[in-house]
Amino acid sequence: MRYVLTGTPAARGMALGRARLVQPSIYTVDTRLLENEEIGPEIERLHKAIDTARQELRELRSKLHGALAREVGDFIDAHSLLLDDDELLRGLDELISVGHYTASAALKMQRDRLAAVFDAMNDPYLKSRGEDIDQVIGRVMSVLQQQSSREERKLAARVGEIVVSDTVAPADMASMAGQGMLGVVASAGSVYSHSAILARSFNLPMLVGTRDALATINDDDLVLIDAENGDVIVHPTAQDLARYRQWQRQAAQEGRRLAALASAPTLTRDGAHMRLFANAEIASDVAQARARGADGIGLYRSEFLFLRQRGLPSEDEQFVAYRDLVLGMGGLPVTIRTLDLGADKADAAGLTIRGEENPALGVRGVRLSLRYPDVFSVQLRAILRAACYGPIRILVPMVTHMGEMVAVRALIKKAREALSREGHELPERLDIGAMIEVPAAAIGVTSILQKADFLSIGTNDLAQYVLAADRNNDALEGIYDPLQPAFLRLIAHVIAAARRARKPVSLCGEIAGDTAFTPLLVAMGLEEFSMHPGQLLQVRDKLTVLDCKALRQAAPKLFRAHTRDEVEAHLLTVLAHGVIGECDTDEVGAL
Amino acid sequence: MRYVLTGTPAARGMALGRARLVQPSIYTVDTRLLENEEIGPEIERLHKAIDTARQELRELRSKLHGALAREVGDFIDAHSLLLDDDELLRGLDELISVGHYTASAALKMQRDRLAAVFDAMNDPYLKSRGEDIDQVIGRVMSVLQQQSSREERKLAARVGEIVVSDTVAPADMASMAGQGMLGVVASAGSVYSHSAILARSFNLPMLVGTRDALATINDDDLVLIDAENGDVIVHPTAQDLARYRQWQRQAAQEGRRLAALASAPTLTRDGAHMRLFANAEIASDVAQARARGADGIGLYRSEFLFLRQRGLPSEDEQFVAYRDLVLGMGGLPVTIRTLDLGADKADAAGLTIRGEENPALGVRGVRLSLRYPDVFSVQLRAILRAACYGPIRILVPMVTHMGEMVAVRALIKKAREALSREGHELPERLDIGAMIEVPAAAIGVTSILQKADFLSIGTNDLAQYVLAADRNNDALEGIYDPLQPAFLRLIAHVIAAARRARKPVSLCGEIAGDTAFTPLLVAMGLEEFSMHPGQLLQVRDKLTVLDCKALRQAAPKLFRAHTRDEVEAHLLTVLAHGVIGECDTDEVGAL
Repeated sequence: MRYVLTGTPAARGMALGRARLVQPSIYTVDTRLLENEEIGPEIERLHKAIDTARQELRELRSKLHGALAREVGDFIDAHSLLLDDDELLRGLDELISVGHYTASAALKMQRDRLAAVFDAMNDPYLKSRGEDIDQVIGRVMSVLQQQSSREERKLAARVGEIVVSDTVAPADMASMAGQGMLGVVASAGSVYSHSAILARSFNLPMLVGTRDALATINDDDLVLIDAENGDVIVHPTAQDLARYRQWQRQAAQEGRRLAALASAPTLTRDGAHMRLFANAEIASDVAQARARGADGIGLYRSEFLFLRQRGLPSEDEQFVAYRDLVLGMGGLPVTIRTLDLGADKADAAGLTIRGEENPALGVRGVRLSLRYPDVFSVQLRAILRAACYGPIRILVPMVTHMGEMVAVRALIKKAREALSREGHELPERLDIGAMIEVPAAAIGVTSILQKADFLSIGTNDLAQYVLAADRNNDALEGIYDPLQPAFLRLIAHVIAAARRARKPVSLCGEIAGDTAFTPLLVAMGLEEFSMHPGQLLQVRDKLTVLDCKALRQAAPKLFRAHTRDEVEAHLLTVLAHGVIGECDTDEVGAL
Repeated sequence: MRYVLTGTPAARGMALGRARLVQPSIYTVDTRLLENEEIGPEIERLHKAIDTARQELRELRSKLHGALAREVGDFIDAHSLLLDDDELLRGLDELISVGHYTASAALKMQRDRLAAVFDAMNDPYLKSRGEDIDQVIGRVMSVLQQQSSREERKLAARVGEIVVSDTVAPADMASMAGQGMLGVVASAGSVYSHSAILARSFNLPMLVGTRDALATINDDDLVLIDAENGDVIVHPTAQDLARYRQWQRQAAQEGRRLAALASAPTLTRDGAHMRLFANAEIASDVAQARARGADGIGLYRSEFLFLRQRGLPSEDEQFVAYRDLVLGMGGLPVTIRTLDLGADKADAAGLTIRGEENPALGVRGVRLSLRYPDVFSVQLRAILRAACYGPIRILVPMVTHMGEMVAVRALIKKAREALSREGHELPERLDIGAMIEVPAAAIGVTSILQKADFLSIGTNDLAQYVLAADRNNDALEGIYDPLQPAFLRLIAHVIAAARRARKPVSLCGEIAGDTAFTPLLVAMGLEEFSMHPGQLLQVRDKLTVLDCKALRQAAPKLFRAHTRDEVEAHLLTVLAHGVIGECDTDEVGAL
């Protein structure tokens, strides 16, 4: 009997295959307390298990070749690094030796503690790093249990299978992709997880948050993943299959067309030049950005450096990371966002305020940096030094008022003077921009522009504040809606102010890479977009069919709308009247 | 040796006297577990202690006369009600009988649990209700300890003394005020607490949050409370005393002048009519509002009804409360804000979403009401029925977009139809207004105005969202600042839109009652202010010296300012150039 489950598309596309269920490992945690004489052997048992897990990852890594090695290697390395983390290991040893816990109980406690830390983070991208912890500790758990139960782990997919699981570790994603797996239906997980990123770059359709998938789908059921619409169809009908074949034909055509776009200029149908930037943190992002013809890095989240190790990264460590980034982009501009640790507890150095009632309204971004000018200056020095190797721009997050930009500029001036005294080479000029994500900064953007060389609109946070709606709160789906006319008007206000001041303005939230929003953003006057590198070609493609002039002329009417539905309807009318060459009203309707 | 401690002024004024330290009661909590045979006697001991505490409150209540009875009675009743709360009592009994805890341990656990509940609330006014719990349980604790240690409680002040304490229960405040106490320096506490409200109505200066007061001040030290500036001066010098005498002379003059204002019309110097409303919840607020010539109730927080008892209040209970309120105002308009439970855990009925990461950005106000249309409709029916007894307006909190107003109007229409079918009398017309506290509603105010008969700007929350700064987060003091030009511009935008639409707009945040902001609000075009009734006369007085026309002319320049300091400087210039009759630049400087 045909039935449909819904999930969130983490990687688009469709796939048809037999289901292969990977039940979440249920680890029996031994909760008794150890006798004194058991402590030594238990610690040894744990370390052996960690060594084995490390060895497994090393073997996986060595099996990767070419592009796959580049893409997946970083993620596997991140997992290996976690297994080498001093703090994690020492904590485990202490739980066993001092607390008399068993190895499995100690692992579970560390996992729960770290999961809570990541769970409390604001940035959904960083939040999803909790999945890594889970997967790495799960791997060690699994080795431990094998030792005791002698059972074999099964995590393999055969050619033509669709994996149904709770979450998938990036290493497993890579190995299963190598075995010919066609797609993933995950009952949990995030669209920002490493495995979701991999699925996108492998072109494997993936749904996350598909509740009940593990409970209702059976091994060998025929399933059709429709990650264009967020559905998984179990026991598809002939009609479903026909739709699938049609999609396949279109996708093949589309793929050929998009590939040709990688080196094409970014132009609208009426010839307006647009600039597409990539959000990038790791080497594979940078490679992907260049391969797809990005105009530069529009957003490098520097807090990544601050989270992956104990204590603060030194000036030299940061310098090397920034320099490699700018060298990797081969002369294209790189925008480094300064430390944007949220008001969560995840920084190893203990900078952030703990226990804030509303961390999203707390001491974040530049507020935190200005609280610790010494820490901030180390970052500024590292950026200044790296800026001699290529064009770098500094982007200041969570700016609320002009005074903060003045304070940052003063610190940069001081850092410059100190570096110059120390005999360092310095860049002649370094643009300093403000991230517009606090409503006060958007409303008062003309004041901010007095002290900013460029702007980047962070629509994810801006929408959350303007609508007073936490975007991670599922109960607010109807309220958190970037199509609300008030929100669109505010963005248009920022873009217009920057254009009047003849300063670059880009947009780097989720909607920048969502082709459903591209017509609206063009209508608002946007010319610079920053997005995940995986979205570059689709957006470039979408731009080629849009008439920039006609859209801009239609803008006033769009912003006068009273409701989000009116915005949608107006836009549909504009697009239907010949703005798009081959008008695809279905897609606009999904907006 | 003279030294100065700083605190937050909870009631203005100055006072000079000898310190009387009231050390916080340190209750020894007996943590052992009871044997079976001890359980019965322990429950009996607890109930005796509760009875004694109830008796003490009753005696206190009976000693009050006249105005004092009216002012303090409600608060003492609130405490007595807590002692009768079934849930609290049953919980205590269970902790003793099932958990084998001692009475003191059970009291402490209940106190901690309830403290956490109130602490999690968004509204600082409701949050401060946690102090009541603390004080009531403290009273029972204290009786319990006397029973076991036979010590006498000392909580009395003599004439001319200044009480230095951690917090003060309202009943103690009343009795000590009766004993001639001159002022209070509290090391903890909130400006919204019942005792702070009492201190304001008794005209007793009070500082809260005066850290180290208990540790550094000694009994009989001479102290000068300067609650105009938030200082307490220990061992004041001759200069301090001279300043105090000068303040005394001015205060006496001022008092005579203000008293005459109670029945005066509210006019600016150039004759513009303004309307002053009171925020009121309890009978004493209503009495105070009328005594000081308020034009009506601008904000009745209906969630008060939802918090003080178990389960949801019935339609009839709500009807009686609203009817009494409207009768109490004798024909003046009453604005009832519909249920504005925050995303905290304090509602007995369990409506709110638990565990939100950012409750301030969560399911609050109308979002919650529209989630539970049945619960909401009961409130709407009660309001509609009460509206036959006098002019009532409905104010909808946390509106984000027009669609919510449409939904509320539909529910009101349905409630009207049902009531009419049931044969109820109905008001001919009932104005429905939107609270403007979400930035999207402020930006898109022209859309909201399509479906709102009036507006009320909630500046406390609006500032928090516009500045992305939790106003209860001490670490954000520099950011949460209502003088930020972007915030002022947004308020001015809302006022201008309402005026263009010829619909009333009032402002009901903290700044409405702060005379330092009165010139600014007049400049923005505001004509309706809603504030704590204790502030009515000061604001009316302030308005009489302002030139409305000149201020409005100066407005564009004020809003073009780039920084809060520029706003201050511009305003100072405007006021210095003859807008104020007798220009008091000191006060403006404090703005």
